[in-house]
Amino acid sequence: MKLYTSTRAPNPRRVDIFLAEKGIEVPKVEINLNNLEQKKPEFIERNPAMRVPVLELDDGTCISESIAICRYFEEIQPDPPLFGVDTLDRALVEMWQRRIELNLMLPVAMVFRHLHPGAAVLEQPQVAEWGEANRTRVIEAIEMLDRQLADRPFVTGDRFTVADISALVGIDFMRPSKFGVPENCANVLRWHSEVSARPSAKA
Amino acid sequence: MKLYTSTRAPNPRRVDIFLAEKGIEVPKVEINLNNLEQKKPEFIERNPAMRVPVLELDDGTCISESIAICRYFEEIQPDPPLFGVDTLDRALVEMWQRRIELNLMLPVAMVFRHLHPGAAVLEQPQVAEWGEANRTRVIEAIEMLDRQLADRPFVTGDRFTVADISALVGIDFMRPSKFGVPENCANVLRWHSEVSARPSAKA
Repeated sequence: MKLYTSTRAPNPRRVDIFLAEKGIEVPKVEINLNNLEQKKPEFIERNPAMRVPVLELDDGTCISESIAICRYFEEIQPDPPLFGVDTLDRALVEMWQRRIELNLMLPVAMVFRHLHPGAAVLEQPQVAEWGEANRTRVIEAIEMLDRQLADRPFVTGDRFTVADISALVGIDFMRPSKFGVPENCANVLRWHSEVSARPSAKA
Repeated sequence: MKLYTSTRAPNPRRVDIFLAEKGIEVPKVEINLNNLEQKKPEFIERNPAMRVPVLELDDGTCISESIAICRYFEEIQPDPPLFGVDTLDRALVEMWQRRIELNLMLPVAMVFRHLHPGAAVLEQPQVAEWGEANRTRVIEAIEMLDRQLADRPFVTGDRFTVADISALVGIDFMRPSKFGVPENCANVLRWHSEVSARPSAKA
């Protein structure tokens, strides 16, 4: 088993944190995104969508998409459960995980990719107006998360889940775009300092 | 159980097709998106992300996000399996389902929301340059799908899955933006005519 990945990119970090929470180690192969290694023929064979991470199994089968990789590990090693513990809980974890991806992670990525000069190699054309429009959406998503975290320690309740991982990675990826959690979102700030203190956050 | 939904919107259609494949019927409440009913306080209580569909359970618990709703039904009624049949198959279905969402459905939605005059009520600001940039991505995603469908009847193999549902809904939602599958993508055209002929496609 081998994980094709890229240090410091947000989606690979989701898998890193997930594996650290499970206590699983997988050998890594670094893909240099700035050199566009993800667009070279040998990588495209592993993932035609040209993105990291990709998990290559011993028989050569490749699984891409961070959450597909996480679900694969959830099945082969269920403990600790990070996708929920029963039918309803699993539905609510999936709901929050997707809500955070669509309303927080994706807009944070749009701000970075369309406004950061260093992202020009990844995103063409860069559309500044679209990048700016997403700043507002990021803040609205954090405000939604703040209301959710008012009366629970983690995003979906008493347990740390993959929804917390996506929210942590999304919020930390605001840093290269030089914005962060608004000061009035005290619940998110409390939660962020707690999940950042977990050993997995440094994985 | 009640499904808050909106006829003709792509995400609600995914749930409709999924339920039809399972043979499950759920009473529906229509939400008028053009009247912004999804932004009214009584709806926001059900889904703070202000999107349809939302599944309300008998105890008042609300599950939103189409795929979270589909997964909930997959667990309470596993047959026919639409998210894969074993650990690896489930990972590959999830991979394709997400690949299609990110590379096909989302860009199709961007073309519609940023270029169609009728979408101005849903998307502010409309950024035409971003809408145009997504046309190319849609075509690239269909070409990727065409290669995948060269030697298998459905997106992930011999079985119809939720990845086929997302691909069908994404492609059909190109219609209001007046574009479609390129003629040279014969595998996608063959697959599209087959999945469109399933009774669920009319659900």
